[in-house]
Amino acid sequence: MKLYSFPSAPNPRRVLIFAAEKQLQIEVVNIDLRGGETKRPEFLQKNPSGKIPVLELVDGTCIAETVAICRYLESLAPEPNLFGRDALEIALIEAHHRHIEFELHTNIGAAWVNGPIVAAAGLVEPIEAQRLRGAGLTRKYYQRMDKELAERSFVAGERFTVADISALCMIDFAAAMVDLQPDSSLEHLWAWHERVSQRANVNN
Amino acid sequence: MKLYSFPSAPNPRRVLIFAAEKQLQIEVVNIDLRGGETKRPEFLQKNPSGKIPVLELVDGTCIAETVAICRYLESLAPEPNLFGRDALEIALIEAHHRHIEFELHTNIGAAWVNGPIVAAAGLVEPIEAQRLRGAGLTRKYYQRMDKELAERSFVAGERFTVADISALCMIDFAAAMVDLQPDSSLEHLWAWHERVSQRANVNN
Repeated sequence: MKLYSFPSAPNPRRVLIFAAEKQLQIEVVNIDLRGGETKRPEFLQKNPSGKIPVLELVDGTCIAETVAICRYLESLAPEPNLFGRDALEIALIEAHHRHIEFELHTNIGAAWVNGPIVAAAGLVEPIEAQRLRGAGLTRKYYQRMDKELAERSFVAGERFTVADISALCMIDFAAAMVDLQPDSSLEHLWAWHERVSQRANVNN
Repeated sequence: MKLYSFPSAPNPRRVLIFAAEKQLQIEVVNIDLRGGETKRPEFLQKNPSGKIPVLELVDGTCIAETVAICRYLESLAPEPNLFGRDALEIALIEAHHRHIEFELHTNIGAAWVNGPIVAAAGLVEPIEAQRLRGAGLTRKYYQRMDKELAERSFVAGERFTVADISALCMIDFAAAMVDLQPDSSLEHLWAWHERVSQRANVNN
């Protein structure tokens, strides 16, 4: 198995942390993202969306999308379980995970794609009002996370799951690349951040 | 089980079609969406995101998020299978489904939240450039779907899955509410639309 990836990109990092939790070995192939390699016909054969990560199996079959790849890895190596064990836990982890993806990731993404780095690369015509909306909603979501993490130890309950991996990678990306570090007053969010960052597998 | 819903909203429709495929009976409770009921403290206890659908179980446990609810229903009634049967099929359906959600739904959503109906309700300050971007990317995605549906019968392969339900409900919503009906020249997309719309369970 090999993973098409790019250093500093948050989504391949999600897969690599997930794989490390499972103690699975995956060859990493860094592609020329800034040179447009994901938009070339050869790569679009692997993923018509033209995005990384993509997992390529030994027979050449390609799986696109971070969470699709993680589900595949969960099937290969069920322990430690990261997506839930029974009907209700599976559903509740999915709900929490989707709140992170649709209400945090998408807003950090709006701040990123309309920001100066993407504009300088000439990839997207920036919409400043949308960048500001994304940044504002990200900060609002950090406040919600802080309240929720006062009540529980991890994003989806009392144990580490895929939802923590997704939240951590996107918050670290936002802090490093979009100037959206959570405010230092959000002590429960920061305590969670320290708890998940200390896991040996998270810093690879 | 009861489902908090609203007529014409696309996400509750996804759950209702999914449940009908499984021949599961769910009580529907329509809430006062336009009157702000989803933003009141009582509803935020059920779903801190303040959105429908929410599935409430007999013990009062609430599951938010369309796909989380569908996964719960898939656990309750495994047949007909709609999320995949083995590691690879589960991953590939997830990848196709996420392309629909992150590249079609989000763009239809951008056209909707920045459009005249939401603006008239005073819910969001519209950003016209973002509405236009969403509409343009939606049309582009329709063209991609048309090409893909020339090669296969359903969104995720040769059988009906959750990805078809999600695509159908969002396209129908876009056509009815955002003036984003797929162009009549997209014959493969329209042939698929007819194929899935004819399923008895789809029109409830």
